[in-house]
Amino acid sequence: MTHHYRHRVRYRECDPMGVAYHTHVLDWFEAARTEALRERGVAYKEIEETGIIMPVVTVEVRYRRPVHYDDLIVVESTFPSEPGARIPITYAVRREGDDQVLITGTVTLAIVDRERGRPVPAPALLAEAFAEAE
Amino acid sequence: MTHHYRHRVRYRECDPMGVAYHTHVLDWFEAARTEALRERGVAYKEIEETGIIMPVVTVEVRYRRPVHYDDLIVVESTFPSEPGARIPITYAVRREGDDQVLITGTVTLAIVDRERGRPVPAPALLAEAFAEAE
Amino acid sequence: MTHHYRHRVRYRECDPMGVAYHTHVLDWFEAARTEALRERGVAYKEIEETGIIMPVVTVEVRYRRPVHYDDLIVVESTFPSEPGARIPITYAVRREGDDQVLITGTVTLAIVDRERGRPVPAPALLAEAFAEAE
Amino acid sequence: MTHHYRHRVRYRECDPMGVAYHTHVLDWFEAARTEALRERGVAYKEIEETGIIMPVVTVEVRYRRPVHYDDLIVVESTFPSEPGARIPITYAVRREGDDQVLITGTVTLAIVDRERGRPVPAPALLAEAFAEAE
Repeated sequence: MTHHYRHRVRYRECDPMGVAYHTHVLDWFEAARTEALRERGVAYKEIEETGIIMPVVTVEVRYRRPVHYDDLIVVESTFPSEPGARIPITYAVRREGDDQVLITGTVTLAIVDRERGRPVPAPALLAEAFAEAE
Repeated sequence: MTHHYRHRVRYRECDPMGVAYHTHVLDWFEAARTEALRERGVAYKEIEETGIIMPVVTVEVRYRRPVHYDDLIVVESTFPSEPGARIPITYAVRREGDDQVLITGTVTLAIVDRERGRPVPAPALLAEAFAEAE
Repeated sequence: MTHHYRHRVRYRECDPMGVAYHTHVLDWFEAARTEALRERGVAYKEIEETGIIMPVVTVEVRYRRPVHYDDLIVVESTFPSEPGARIPITYAVRREGDDQVLITGTVTLAIVDRERGRPVPAPALLAEAFAEAE
Repeated sequence: MTHHYRHRVRYRECDPMGVAYHTHVLDWFEAARTEALRERGVAYKEIEETGIIMPVVTVEVRYRRPVHYDDLIVVESTFPSEPGARIPITYAVRREGDDQVLITGTVTLAIVDRERGRPVPAPALLAEAFAEAE
Protein backbone atom coordinates (compact mmCIF):
# COMPACT_ATOMS: atom_id res chain seq x y z
CA MET A 1 0.00 0.00 0.00
CA THR A 2 1.76 3.10 -1.31
CA HIS A 3 0.45 6.66 -1.43
CA HIS A 4 1.76 9.95 -2.79
CA TYR A 5 1.15 13.22 -0.96
CA ARG A 6 2.07 16.57 -2.51
CA HIS A 7 3.23 19.54 -0.45
CA ARG A 8 4.48 23.02 -1.29
CA VAL A 9 7.36 24.03 0.99
CA ARG A 10 6.37 27.15 2.93
CA TYR A 11 8.40 30.18 3.98
CA ARG A 12 7.68 29.42 7.63
CA GLU A 13 9.30 26.00 7.13
CA CYS A 14 12.60 27.43 5.82
CA ASP A 15 15.58 28.50 7.88
CA PRO A 16 18.39 31.03 7.45
CA MET A 17 20.16 28.55 5.11
CA GLY A 18 17.11 28.98 2.81
CA VAL A 19 16.22 25.29 3.08
CA ALA A 20 13.43 23.42 4.85
CA TYR A 21 14.30 23.03 8.54
CA HIS A 22 14.62 19.36 9.45
CA THR A 23 11.77 19.20 11.97
CA HIS A 24 9.05 19.97 9.41
CA VAL A 25 9.70 16.71 7.59
CA LEU A 26 7.84 14.99 10.43
CA ASP A 27 4.85 17.26 9.74
CA TRP A 28 4.87 16.17 6.09
CA PHE A 29 5.01 12.53 7.14
CA GLU A 30 1.96 13.03 9.38
CA ALA A 31 -0.06 14.60 6.56
CA ALA A 32 1.08 11.88 4.15
CA ARG A 33 0.00 8.95 6.34
CA THR A 34 -3.31 10.63 7.23
CA GLU A 35 -4.18 11.08 3.55
CA ALA A 36 -2.97 7.56 2.71
CA LEU A 37 -5.39 6.14 5.28
CA ARG A 38 -8.21 8.42 4.10
CA GLU A 39 -7.74 7.13 0.55
CA ARG A 40 -8.24 3.61 1.96
CA GLY A 41 -11.49 4.79 3.57
CA VAL A 42 -10.12 5.36 7.08
CA ALA A 43 -10.25 8.76 8.78
CA TYR A 44 -7.84 8.74 11.73
CA LYS A 45 -10.49 10.79 13.52
CA GLU A 46 -12.88 7.82 13.37
CA ILE A 47 -10.25 5.50 14.79
CA GLU A 48 -9.88 7.82 17.78
CA GLU A 49 -13.65 7.86 18.22
CA THR A 50 -13.52 4.07 18.81
CA GLY A 51 -11.19 4.69 21.80
CA ILE A 52 -8.00 3.74 19.98
CA ILE A 53 -5.02 6.08 19.73
CA MET A 54 -1.96 5.57 17.55
CA PRO A 55 0.99 7.36 19.12
CA VAL A 56 4.35 7.61 17.37
CA VAL A 57 6.87 5.33 19.11
CA THR A 58 9.95 5.68 16.91
CA VAL A 59 11.15 8.05 14.21
CA GLU A 60 14.15 7.71 11.89
CA VAL A 61 14.94 10.26 9.19
CA ARG A 62 17.87 10.56 6.82
CA TYR A 63 18.29 13.94 5.15
CA ARG A 64 20.18 13.27 1.89
CA ARG A 65 19.77 16.52 0.01
CA PRO A 66 18.30 19.91 0.89
CA VAL A 67 14.70 20.84 0.06
CA HIS A 68 14.25 24.52 -0.83
CA TYR A 69 11.61 27.18 -0.30
CA ASP A 70 8.64 26.82 -2.67
CA ASP A 71 9.69 23.37 -3.88
CA LEU A 72 6.73 21.18 -4.77
CA ILE A 73 7.52 17.87 -3.11
CA VAL A 74 5.95 14.43 -3.22
CA VAL A 75 5.99 12.31 -0.07
CA GLU A 76 5.66 8.62 -0.86
CA SER A 77 4.44 6.58 2.11
CA THR A 78 4.46 2.79 2.20
CA PHE A 79 2.44 0.81 4.74
CA PRO A 80 3.12 -2.77 5.81
CA SER A 81 0.79 -5.32 4.21
CA GLU A 82 -0.72 -6.29 7.59
CA PRO A 83 -1.07 -4.04 10.62
CA GLY A 84 0.62 -5.66 13.63
CA ALA A 85 0.86 -4.30 17.16
CA ARG A 86 3.17 -1.71 15.68
CA ILE A 87 2.89 -0.15 12.25
CA PRO A 88 6.14 0.97 10.62
CA ILE A 89 5.48 3.37 7.74
CA THR A 90 8.36 4.22 5.40
CA TYR A 91 8.69 7.46 3.49
CA ALA A 92 10.63 8.85 0.55
CA VAL A 93 10.55 12.54 -0.39
CA ARG A 94 11.22 13.70 -3.96
CA ARG A 95 10.61 16.85 -5.98
CA GLU A 96 7.57 16.62 -8.26
CA GLY A 97 8.70 15.21 -11.60
CA ASP A 98 12.16 14.23 -10.33
CA ASP A 99 13.28 10.73 -9.35
CA GLN A 100 16.06 11.74 -6.98
CA VAL A 101 15.27 10.83 -3.38
CA LEU A 102 15.94 13.80 -1.07
CA ILE A 103 14.83 12.43 2.29
CA THR A 104 13.94 8.97 3.58
CA GLY A 105 12.44 7.92 6.88
CA THR A 106 10.41 5.51 8.96
CA VAL A 107 7.77 6.42 11.55
CA THR A 108 6.39 3.59 13.69
CA LEU A 109 2.97 3.89 15.30
CA ALA A 110 1.65 1.81 18.19
CA ILE A 111 -2.01 0.88 18.57
CA VAL A 112 -3.19 1.67 22.07
CA ASP A 113 -6.47 1.50 24.00
CA ARG A 114 -6.72 5.07 25.25
CA GLU A 115 -8.68 4.26 28.41
CA ARG A 116 -6.42 1.46 29.63
CA GLY A 117 -3.17 2.75 28.11
CA ARG A 118 -2.46 -0.73 26.73
CA PRO A 119 -1.35 -1.98 23.30
CA VAL A 120 -4.21 -3.64 21.40
CA PRO A 121 -4.57 -5.36 18.02
CA ALA A 122 -5.43 -3.17 15.04
CA PRO A 123 -9.16 -2.30 14.97
CA ALA A 124 -11.22 -3.99 12.22
CA LEU A 125 -11.56 -0.61 10.49
CA LEU A 126 -7.81 -0.48 9.99
CA ALA A 127 -7.20 -4.16 9.24
CA GLU A 128 -9.79 -4.05 6.45
CA ALA A 129 -8.24 -0.99 4.89
CA PHE A 130 -4.84 -2.68 4.79
CA ALA A 131 -6.31 -5.91 3.42
CA GLU A 132 -8.12 -4.13 0.60
CA ALA A 133 -4.91 -2.43 -0.36
CA GLU A 134 -3.11 -5.62 -1.22
CA MET B 1 0.59 43.13 37.07
CA THR B 2 3.64 43.04 34.82
CA HIS B 3 5.99 40.12 34.18
CA HIS B 4 9.20 39.64 32.18
CA TYR B 5 9.87 36.43 30.30
CA ARG B 6 13.27 35.75 28.68
CA HIS B 7 13.62 33.74 25.49
CA ARG B 8 16.55 32.84 23.24
CA VAL B 9 15.54 33.01 19.56
CA ARG B 10 16.06 29.58 18.00
CA TYR B 11 17.25 28.57 14.53
CA ARG B 12 13.94 26.81 13.87
CA GLU B 13 12.18 30.15 14.48
CA CYS B 14 14.20 32.03 11.85
CA ASP B 15 13.40 32.34 8.17
CA PRO B 16 15.45 32.82 4.99
CA MET B 17 15.71 36.54 5.83
CA GLY B 18 17.63 35.44 8.96
CA VAL B 19 15.03 36.94 11.28
CA ALA B 20 12.39 35.43 13.54
CA TYR B 21 9.34 34.46 11.47
CA HIS B 22 6.29 36.44 12.59
CA THR B 23 4.17 33.49 13.74
CA HIS B 24 6.54 32.51 16.55
CA VAL B 25 5.85 35.74 18.41
CA LEU B 26 2.51 34.22 19.42
CA ASP B 27 4.40 31.28 20.92
CA TRP B 28 6.50 33.68 23.00
CA PHE B 29 3.35 35.45 24.18
CA GLU B 30 1.87 32.11 25.30
CA ALA B 31 4.98 31.21 27.32
CA ALA B 32 5.11 34.73 28.78
CA ARG B 33 1.52 34.73 30.06
CA THR B 34 1.80 31.19 31.40
CA GLU B 35 4.89 32.10 33.43
CA ALA B 36 3.31 35.40 34.56
CA LEU B 37 0.36 33.46 35.98
CA ARG B 38 2.64 30.86 37.56
CA GLU B 39 4.54 33.62 39.35
CA ARG B 40 1.17 34.73 40.81
CA GLY B 41 0.60 31.17 42.02
CA VAL B 42 -1.67 30.03 39.20
CA ALA B 43 -0.79 27.11 36.93
CA TYR B 44 -2.99 27.26 33.84
CA LYS B 45 -3.12 23.47 34.09
CA GLU B 46 -4.98 23.79 37.42
CA ILE B 47 -7.49 26.19 35.90
CA GLU B 48 -8.27 23.61 33.23
CA GLU B 49 -8.70 20.95 35.90
CA THR B 50 -11.58 23.01 37.34
CA GLY B 51 -13.41 22.71 33.99
CA ILE B 52 -12.53 26.21 32.79
CA ILE B 53 -10.74 26.84 29.49
CA MET B 54 -9.30 30.16 28.35
CA PRO B 55 -9.27 30.24 24.54
CA VAL B 56 -7.65 33.08 22.62
CA VAL B 57 -10.38 35.23 21.04
CA THR B 58 -8.37 38.04 19.46
CA VAL B 59 -4.75 38.70 18.58
CA GLU B 60 -3.09 41.92 17.46
CA VAL B 61 0.63 42.21 16.80
CA ARG B 62 2.74 45.05 15.43
CA TYR B 63 6.21 44.09 14.22
CA ARG B 64 8.31 47.25 14.50
CA ARG B 65 11.85 45.94 14.07
CA PRO B 66 13.33 42.54 13.21
CA VAL B 67 14.44 40.07 15.87
CA HIS B 68 17.48 38.02 14.84
CA TYR B 69 18.70 34.47 15.37
CA ASP B 70 20.19 33.90 18.83
CA ASP B 71 18.92 37.23 20.19
CA LEU B 72 18.09 37.05 23.89
CA ILE B 73 14.72 38.76 24.15
CA VAL B 74 12.54 39.86 27.04
CA VAL B 75 8.76 39.66 26.65
CA GLU B 76 6.98 42.03 29.01
CA SER B 77 3.36 41.05 29.64
CA THR B 78 0.84 43.28 31.38
CA PHE B 79 -2.42 41.94 32.77
CA PRO B 80 -5.53 44.02 33.50
CA SER B 81 -6.01 44.82 37.19
CA GLU B 82 -9.26 42.80 37.37
CA PRO B 83 -10.15 39.78 35.26
CA GLY B 84 -13.45 40.40 33.44
CA ALA B 85 -15.27 38.06 31.07
CA ARG B 86 -12.40 38.72 28.70
CA ILE B 87 -8.78 39.23 29.66
CA PRO B 88 -6.72 41.42 27.36
CA ILE B 89 -2.99 40.95 27.95
CA THR B 90 -0.57 43.39 26.35
CA TYR B 91 2.99 42.58 25.37
CA ALA B 92 6.21 44.39 24.49
CA VAL B 93 9.31 42.58 23.19
CA ARG B 94 12.81 44.04 23.66
CA ARG B 95 16.36 42.72 23.50
CA GLU B 96 17.86 41.99 26.93
CA GLY B 97 19.54 45.16 28.18
CA ASP B 98 18.06 47.36 25.45
CA ASP B 99 15.08 49.72 25.83
CA GLN B 100 14.00 49.76 22.22
CA VAL B 101 10.64 48.08 21.69
CA LEU B 102 10.80 45.63 18.77
CA ILE B 103 7.31 44.14 18.81
CA THR B 104 4.06 45.01 20.60
CA GLY B 105 0.82 43.10 20.82
CA THR B 106 -2.40 42.25 22.61
CA VAL B 107 -3.87 38.78 23.08
CA THR B 108 -7.37 38.54 24.56
CA LEU B 109 -8.51 35.40 26.36
CA ALA B 110 -12.10 34.42 27.10
CA ILE B 111 -13.11 32.45 30.19
CA VAL B 112 -15.31 29.54 29.20
CA ASP B 113 -16.98 26.61 30.95
CA ARG B 114 -15.67 23.70 28.89
CA GLU B 115 -18.66 21.44 29.40
CA ARG B 116 -21.33 23.98 28.48
CA GLY B 117 -19.23 26.02 26.04
CA ARG B 118 -20.40 29.22 27.77
CA PRO B 119 -18.55 32.32 29.00
CA VAL B 120 -18.26 32.39 32.79
CA PRO B 121 -16.78 34.79 35.37
CA ALA B 122 -13.12 34.36 36.26
CA PRO B 123 -12.61 31.48 38.72
CA ALA B 124 -11.64 32.47 42.30
CA LEU B 125 -8.15 31.06 41.70
CA LEU B 126 -7.59 33.62 38.98
CA ALA B 127 -9.36 36.57 40.60
CA GLU B 128 -7.24 36.18 43.73
CA ALA B 129 -4.01 36.07 41.74
CA PHE B 130 -4.93 39.33 40.02
CA ALA B 131 -5.99 40.97 43.29
CA GLU B 132 -2.74 40.07 45.05
CA ALA B 133 -0.83 41.57 42.15
CA GLU B 134 -2.19 45.07 42.69
CA MET C 1 -8.80 40.04 -6.06
CA THR C 2 -10.08 37.16 -3.98
CA HIS C 3 -8.69 33.65 -3.71
CA HIS C 4 -9.76 30.47 -1.92
CA TYR C 5 -7.20 28.16 -0.32
CA ARG C 6 -8.21 24.75 1.06
CA HIS C 7 -6.47 23.19 4.08
CA ARG C 8 -7.05 20.03 6.09
CA VAL C 9 -6.53 20.68 9.83
CA ARG C 10 -3.71 18.43 11.06
CA TYR C 11 -3.26 16.63 14.36
CA ARG C 12 -0.06 18.58 15.04
CA GLU C 13 -2.13 21.79 14.80
CA CYS C 14 -4.64 20.74 17.47
CA ASP C 15 -4.34 21.29 21.20
CA PRO C 16 -5.62 19.48 24.29
CA MET C 17 -9.03 21.15 23.75
CA GLY C 18 -9.16 19.18 20.46
CA VAL C 19 -9.29 22.38 18.40
CA ALA C 20 -6.77 24.13 16.15
CA TYR C 21 -4.35 26.12 18.28
CA HIS C 22 -4.59 29.82 17.48
CA THR C 23 -1.05 30.31 16.20
CA HIS C 24 -1.49 28.02 13.19
CA VAL C 25 -4.05 30.34 11.65
CA LEU C 26 -1.14 32.59 10.68
CA ASP C 27 0.41 29.63 8.85
CA TRP C 28 -2.81 29.15 6.87
CA PHE C 29 -2.84 32.85 6.00
CA GLU C 30 0.73 32.59 4.67
CA ALA C 31 -0.12 29.62 2.46
CA ALA C 32 -3.31 31.35 1.27
CA ARG C 33 -1.60 34.58 0.17
CA THR C 34 1.27 32.69 -1.48
CA GLU C 35 -1.14 30.64 -3.57
CA ALA C 36 -3.27 33.70 -4.34
CA LEU C 37 -0.21 35.44 -5.77
CA ARG C 38 0.85 32.32 -7.67
CA GLU C 39 -2.57 32.17 -9.30
CA ARG C 40 -1.94 35.75 -10.51
CA GLY C 41 1.38 34.61 -11.98
CA VAL C 42 3.62 35.80 -9.14
CA ALA C 43 5.83 33.41 -7.17
CA TYR C 44 6.92 35.14 -3.98
CA LYS C 45 10.28 33.42 -4.55
CA GLU C 46 10.77 35.45 -7.74
CA ILE C 47 9.99 38.68 -5.91
CA GLU C 48 12.75 37.89 -3.41
CA GLU C 49 15.14 37.16 -6.27
CA THR C 50 14.70 40.79 -7.40
CA GLY C 51 16.03 41.94 -4.00
CA ILE C 52 12.61 42.82 -2.57
CA ILE C 53 11.33 41.29 0.68
CA MET C 54 7.79 41.57 2.04
CA PRO C 55 7.90 41.27 5.82
CA VAL C 56 4.73 41.10 7.89
CA VAL C 57 4.28 44.40 9.77
CA THR C 58 0.91 43.89 11.48
CA VAL C 59 -1.40 41.00 12.22
CA GLU C 60 -4.97 41.05 13.54
CA VAL C 61 -7.02 37.89 14.03
CA ARG C 62 -10.48 37.34 15.51
CA TYR C 63 -11.28 33.76 16.49
CA ARG C 64 -15.08 33.51 16.37
CA ARG C 65 -15.67 29.76 16.51
CA PRO C 66 -13.41 26.75 17.02
CA VAL C 67 -11.94 24.80 14.12
CA HIS C 68 -11.59 21.07 14.82
CA TYR C 69 -9.15 18.32 13.96
CA ASP C 70 -9.55 17.03 10.40
CA ASP C 71 -11.89 19.88 9.37
CA LEU C 72 -11.51 20.81 5.72
CA ILE C 73 -11.34 24.58 5.76
CA VAL C 74 -11.35 27.26 3.08
CA VAL C 75 -9.28 30.40 3.63
CA GLU C 76 -10.58 33.30 1.56
CA SER C 77 -7.97 36.01 1.03
CA THR C 78 -8.75 39.43 -0.40
CA PHE C 79 -6.05 41.73 -1.73
CA PRO C 80 -6.36 45.51 -2.15
CA SER C 81 -6.97 46.61 -5.74
CA GLU C 82 -3.64 48.47 -5.92
CA PRO C 83 -0.48 47.58 -4.01
CA GLY C 84 0.69 50.61 -2.00
CA ALA C 85 3.74 50.86 0.24
CA ARG C 86 1.89 48.48 2.53
CA ILE C 87 -0.41 45.67 1.44
CA PRO C 88 -3.22 44.76 3.84
CA ILE C 89 -4.68 41.34 3.01
CA THR C 90 -7.92 40.30 4.69
CA TYR C 91 -8.92 36.73 5.43
CA ALA C 92 -12.05 34.76 6.29
CA VAL C 93 -11.94 31.08 7.29
CA ARG C 94 -14.94 28.79 6.76
CA ARG C 95 -15.53 25.05 6.64
CA GLU C 96 -15.81 23.66 3.10
CA GLY C 97 -19.47 23.85 2.04
CA ASP C 98 -20.50 26.00 5.01
CA ASP C 99 -21.11 29.77 4.95
CA GLN C 100 -20.43 30.43 8.62
CA VAL C 101 -17.30 32.48 9.17
CA LEU C 102 -15.10 30.91 11.87
CA ILE C 103 -12.09 33.21 11.86
CA THR C 104 -11.33 36.60 10.32
CA GLY C 105 -8.08 38.51 10.10
CA THR C 106 -5.84 41.02 8.39
CA VAL C 107 -2.12 40.63 7.72
CA THR C 108 -0.27 43.69 6.39
CA LEU C 109 2.95 43.28 4.42
CA ALA C 110 5.53 45.98 3.75
CA ILE C 111 7.60 46.14 0.56
CA VAL C 112 11.26 46.56 1.42
CA ASP C 113 14.55 46.72 -0.49
CA ARG C 114 16.51 43.99 1.25
CA GLU C 115 19.96 45.52 0.70
CA ARG C 116 19.10 49.00 1.94
CA GLY C 117 16.41 47.99 4.45
CA ARG C 118 14.13 50.71 3.05
CA PRO C 119 10.46 50.72 1.99
CA VAL C 120 10.08 50.80 -1.78
CA PRO C 121 7.13 50.92 -4.22
CA ALA C 122 5.66 47.60 -5.33
CA PRO C 123 7.79 45.95 -8.03
CA ALA C 124 6.27 45.89 -11.56
CA LEU C 125 5.80 42.12 -11.25
CA LEU C 126 3.43 42.67 -8.35
CA ALA C 127 1.67 45.79 -9.64
CA GLU C 128 0.80 44.01 -12.88
CA ALA C 129 -0.60 41.01 -11.07
CA PHE C 130 -2.89 43.25 -9.05
CA ALA C 131 -3.94 45.26 -12.12
CA GLU C 132 -4.89 42.12 -14.07
CA ALA C 133 -6.99 41.00 -11.18
CA GLU C 134 -9.35 43.95 -11.36
CA MET D 1 30.76 16.41 27.33
CA THR D 2 27.25 16.30 28.79
CA HIS D 3 24.82 19.18 29.27
CA HIS D 4 21.36 19.53 30.82
CA TYR D 5 18.75 21.81 29.29
CA ARG D 6 15.46 22.53 31.08
CA HIS D 7 12.21 23.14 29.20
CA ARG D 8 8.61 23.70 30.28
CA VAL D 9 6.19 21.87 27.95
CA ARG D 10 3.88 24.43 26.32
CA TYR D 11 0.20 24.23 25.43
CA ARG D 12 1.04 24.80 21.75
CA GLU D 13 3.23 21.66 21.90
CA CYS D 14 0.43 19.39 23.16
CA ASP D 15 -2.06 17.50 21.06
CA PRO D 16 -5.63 16.25 21.56
CA MET D 17 -4.25 13.32 23.61
CA GLY D 18 -3.00 15.98 26.08
CA VAL D 19 0.63 14.98 25.54
CA ALA D 20 3.54 16.62 23.76
CA TYR D 21 3.29 15.98 20.03
CA HIS D 22 6.28 13.98 18.81
CA THR D 23 7.68 16.57 16.41
CA HIS D 24 8.49 19.11 19.15
CA VAL D 25 11.09 16.80 20.67
CA LEU D 26 13.37 17.79 17.78
CA ASP D 27 12.91 21.44 18.80
CA TRP D 28 14.02 20.59 22.35
CA PHE D 29 17.06 18.78 20.99
CA GLU D 30 18.02 21.87 18.95
CA ALA D 31 17.78 24.16 21.98
CA ALA D 32 19.71 21.63 24.10
CA ARG D 33 22.68 21.32 21.74
CA THR D 34 22.81 25.09 21.15
CA GLU D 35 23.01 25.77 24.88
CA ALA D 36 25.52 22.92 25.38
CA LEU D 37 27.83 24.53 22.83
CA ARG D 38 27.29 28.00 24.34
CA GLU D 39 28.36 26.67 27.73
CA ARG D 40 31.60 25.49 26.06
CA GLY D 41 32.09 29.02 24.71
CA VAL D 42 30.75 28.40 21.20
CA ALA D 43 27.78 30.30 19.78
CA TYR D 44 26.47 28.45 16.74
CA LYS D 45 25.92 31.91 15.25
CA GLU D 46 29.69 32.51 15.29
CA ILE D 47 30.35 29.21 13.55
CA GLU D 48 28.02 30.26 10.74
CA GLU D 49 29.82 33.59 10.50
CA THR D 50 33.00 31.68 9.60
CA GLY D 51 31.19 30.22 6.56
CA ILE D 52 30.53 26.82 8.13
CA ILE D 53 27.02 25.36 8.44
CA MET D 54 26.07 22.28 10.41
CA PRO D 55 22.97 20.72 8.84
CA VAL D 56 21.17 17.79 10.45
CA VAL D 57 21.84 14.64 8.41
CA THR D 58 20.10 11.95 10.47
CA VAL D 59 17.58 11.85 13.30
CA GLU D 60 16.51 8.90 15.44
CA VAL D 61 14.03 9.22 18.30
CA ARG D 62 12.44 6.64 20.55
CA TYR D 63 9.36 7.80 22.47
CA ARG D 64 9.18 5.56 25.54
CA ARG D 65 6.64 7.35 27.72
CA PRO D 66 4.38 10.36 27.21
CA VAL D 67 5.38 13.87 28.27
CA HIS D 68 2.46 15.99 29.47
CA TYR D 69 1.43 19.62 29.30
CA ASP D 70 3.30 21.83 31.76
CA ASP D 71 5.85 19.12 32.64
CA LEU D 72 9.25 20.55 33.48
CA ILE D 73 11.65 18.38 31.52
CA VAL D 74 15.42 18.05 31.42
CA VAL D 75 17.10 17.23 28.11
CA GLU D 76 20.51 15.65 28.61
CA SER D 77 22.75 15.95 25.55
CA THR D 78 26.02 14.09 25.14
CA PHE D 79 28.60 15.09 22.55
CA PRO D 80 31.35 12.82 21.16
CA SER D 81 34.79 13.46 22.67
CA GLU D 82 36.22 14.59 19.32
CA PRO D 83 34.29 16.23 16.49
CA GLY D 84 34.75 14.21 13.27
CA ALA D 85 33.29 14.96 9.86
CA ARG D 86 29.94 14.10 11.42
CA ILE D 87 28.88 14.85 14.98
CA PRO D 88 26.38 12.44 16.53
CA ILE D 89 24.76 13.94 19.63
CA THR D 90 22.71 11.67 21.87
CA TYR D 91 19.82 12.81 24.04
CA ALA D 92 17.79 11.57 26.99
CA VAL D 93 14.66 13.37 28.23
CA ARG D 94 13.50 13.07 31.86
CA ARG D 95 11.15 14.97 34.14
CA GLU D 96 12.96 17.31 36.56
CA GLY D 97 13.78 15.35 39.70
CA ASP D 98 12.86 11.98 38.19
CA ASP D 99 15.32 9.36 36.87
CA GLN D 100 12.96 7.65 34.46
CA VAL D 101 13.96 8.20 30.84
CA LEU D 102 10.95 9.25 28.75
CA ILE D 103 12.53 9.81 25.34
CA THR D 104 15.92 9.01 23.82
CA GLY D 105 17.41 10.06 20.52
CA THR D 106 20.40 10.81 18.34
CA VAL D 107 20.80 13.75 15.98
CA THR D 108 23.83 13.75 13.67
CA LEU D 109 25.19 17.00 12.28
CA ALA D 110 27.51 17.36 9.29
CA ILE D 111 30.11 20.11 9.02
CA VAL D 112 29.85 21.80 5.65
CA ASP D 113 31.52 24.73 3.90
CA ARG D 114 28.49 26.81 2.94
CA GLU D 115 30.01 28.37 -0.18
CA ARG D 116 31.27 25.12 -1.73
CA GLY D 117 28.62 22.82 -0.29
CA ARG D 118 31.34 20.38 0.77
CA PRO D 119 32.05 18.53 4.05
CA VAL D 120 34.99 20.03 5.93
CA PRO D 121 36.83 19.22 9.18
CA ALA D 122 35.49 20.80 12.38
CA PRO D 123 36.58 24.45 12.70
CA ALA D 124 39.19 25.20 15.41
CA LEU D 125 36.50 27.02 17.40
CA LEU D 126 34.55 23.77 17.73
CA ALA D 127 37.49 21.39 18.15
CA GLU D 128 38.80 23.46 21.07
CA ALA D 129 35.43 23.47 22.78
CA PHE D 130 35.26 19.68 22.58
CA ALA D 131 38.85 19.29 23.77
CA GLU D 132 38.30 21.49 26.83
CA ALA D 133 35.27 19.43 27.71
CA GLU D 134 37.23 16.23 28.18
